Amino acid sequence: MSLSIYETTVNTFRRMLGGLDKELQRAVEYAATRGFEPDRLLSGRLAPDMFDLTRQVQIACDLAKGAGARLAGLDIPKHADDETQIAALRARIARVLSFLDTLPREDIDGAAEREIVLSVQGRELRFAGADYVNRWALPNFYFHCSMAYALLRQQGVPLGKRDFLALG
Amino acid sequence: MSLSIYETTVNTFRRMLGGLDKELQRAVEYAATRGFEPDRLLSGRLAPDMFDLTRQVQIACDLAKGAGARLAGLDIPKHADDETQIAALRARIARVLSFLDTLPREDIDGAAEREIVLSVQGRELRFAGADYVNRWALPNFYFHCSMAYALLRQQGVPLGKRDFLALG
Repeated sequence: MSLSIYETTVNTFRRMLGGLDKELQRAVEYAATRGFEPDRLLSGRLAPDMFDLTRQVQIACDLAKGAGARLAGLDIPKHADDETQIAALRARIARVLSFLDTLPREDIDGAAEREIVLSVQGRELRFAGADYVNRWALPNFYFHCSMAYALLRQQGVPLGKRDFLALG
Repeated sequence: MSLSIYETTVNTFRRMLGGLDKELQRAVEYAATRGFEPDRLLSGRLAPDMFDLTRQVQIACDLAKGAGARLAGLDIPKHADDETQIAALRARIARVLSFLDTLPREDIDGAAEREIVLSVQGRELRFAGADYVNRWALPNFYFHCSMAYALLRQQGVPLGKRDFLALG
């Protein structure tokens, strides 16, 4: 009668990254109808000192694979931040989705009290697993998915919140 | 050894709305140093067909009070959408925080299987409580908090993701 950590994290990451992948596909289609190079969208920023679309997608991916691995007690796969095309970002999403598929549900569901240690800008953050989910992994993951959506919307890609929610 | 629904919803709403309130306070201070009327920020939009800052804050508030009430099996308090000033939006946040304080933890923690019925744009959506949290309440709530943050950042208010996360 409570929330499964696996459902709340891994299945959320799957659904939302699947939605983000479709948003990127929609961006490519939109650019085609308007006759511009879709990868131009990747340098869009909401403010000069905020990350561009490429980085927002990379970080959303890293939060999903990092949280999945940490909660399962596994090493985090490293993905180079070298994408310069939407196609490459979509491939990164696919790699993360494949990794999420390998994570054992029972290990993740048992992680509520596992200590999670993060190093963030040279500062060490320690959380119990449940707090890590609620105070770090979910808000950060949703933040970067939201920024990616906003950057596509701001540049004209026809999307609605239903695409963001990816309810299917 | 799983996630408390109360922690994952009510305490998340508290922390994030507290953070949003501080972001709005920062916006007022920023406007004062720059010598403009702070309430001008409220009409900012990321795209012409996206909601303005006022509406983003109102919806974040409504998602928190709606989810809290639904999960507790209580009527949802109605708050008129009539704010035209940052001060009034901050008062709305305060009203929602007070309402969240009244919600019984045990009723919310027991809501994993309570059926939640929503009417969204004339369409009925039905969820078990846990799915409502993961597929509707959290992604929507984080989305609108993220859009409010983005609108303040885009208009120059000096904020960082630490403000969004409100880890204290």
